[in-house]
Amino acid sequence: MRTRPGRASTDAVDITQQTIGILGGTGPQGRGLAYRLARAGQPVVIGSRTLERAQDTAAQVGLGLTGHSNVEAARHSDIVIVTVPWEGHAVTLKVVRKELEGKLVIDSVNPLGFDSKGAYALRPEEGSAAEQAAVLLPETRVTAAFHHLSATVLTDPEIETIETDVLVLGENRTDTDIVQGLIDRVPGLRGIYAGRLRNAHQVEALVANLISINRRYKRHAGVRITDL
Amino acid sequence: MRTRPGRASTDAVDITQQTIGILGGTGPQGRGLAYRLARAGQPVVIGSRTLERAQDTAAQVGLGLTGHSNVEAARHSDIVIVTVPWEGHAVTLKVVRKELEGKLVIDSVNPLGFDSKGAYALRPEEGSAAEQAAVLLPETRVTAAFHHLSATVLTDPEIETIETDVLVLGENRTDTDIVQGLIDRVPGLRGIYAGRLRNAHQVEALVANLISINRRYKRHAGVRITDL
Repeated sequence: MRTRPGRASTDAVDITQQTIGILGGTGPQGRGLAYRLARAGQPVVIGSRTLERAQDTAAQVGLGLTGHSNVEAARHSDIVIVTVPWEGHAVTLKVVRKELEGKLVIDSVNPLGFDSKGAYALRPEEGSAAEQAAVLLPETRVTAAFHHLSATVLTDPEIETIETDVLVLGENRTDTDIVQGLIDRVPGLRGIYAGRLRNAHQVEALVANLISINRRYKRHAGVRITDL
Repeated sequence: MRTRPGRASTDAVDITQQTIGILGGTGPQGRGLAYRLARAGQPVVIGSRTLERAQDTAAQVGLGLTGHSNVEAARHSDIVIVTVPWEGHAVTLKVVRKELEGKLVIDSVNPLGFDSKGAYALRPEEGSAAEQAAVLLPETRVTAAFHHLSATVLTDPEIETIETDVLVLGENRTDTDIVQGLIDRVPGLRGIYAGRLRNAHQVEALVANLISINRRYKRHAGVRITDL
């Protein structure tokens, strides 16, 4: 029997009323997160570089989602999840910097390279994608989470619960508690605090190992923390 | 119900007859691994920089263990697990280079720093401790594993089974299969192939996150891979 480890009170924030904006929400990961959060009852808006793609994806997912430009999605959201490809990470954040001031951002980007031997971790100059976000968004509360979820699993409507843990990184306990509360709304997921942003790189990079595992065993591997 | 994912035949090697040498076997991690492997019926020898400490630890653990200098332990072993502190990693491997030629080495070292904010990952010049071992031991079959096991759990005789996964990295499937076979001998442990050595850094560094988890939740966190 799993337990949800204790955390500080987040009574000040009613997470169920917070609108979640998903930047890069038309990719498989963003679309999958949008679907799972909306299915759990969360208000969700999808952002994309092109309004039409965002609107198309929102219509395909259904569940009351709406599609917007990334700037408009950021403006209409209380909490923003960043799911753009690593190549578009810095440029996207610069575009929405103003709209994200004071807001809570959850960076889920995994900087990876691929060659004939499979996936390998890239090392951002700032240390990690999350630390790059913190540098580019000095007025924003930056956290990191949602790195290890399979888009295939997220988007499969036949899968009711996703029995896996989501590691949450951040500098501020109030913020990481809110992120954990959001994660816990999705059946099966469990948010676990896993350290400060300076320890985000290895969490992002571990996706290269999960890809190796998936190739070897033909599965959709996730991570569970034991003894919690 | 957990399964042990399929792997290539390792019939050529009867793992139960292989002597495991543990370099740095007097530290908590090395002592814990020595205890668990010997308790599972594996022949184990302990190596240390000082013969007396190795002999003392072997006598304390019991189970037929013997203590030796690192060089002698390497010479008497078929498979060698490296559990020295990161600071002693390169110097120890240089000392035993000749004795390790042709043998299978399992590097378990986590390069970490500590300050007032907790643990953080160090970045070895070669990419990881395991890749440093591969550079320093060109005639040795280098793999990496055993990064995420709690020494407290390993050494607690009351704990019969340790329900956690051990991620195994290496360049050669025959070798990683042997390491997985060794891991599977310990009740509860399950060896999972998790990629090549170029993806070892994040596995080593993830210990910093487990330390953060342990501090927050007061537990002995481990890792389990889901959907396997």
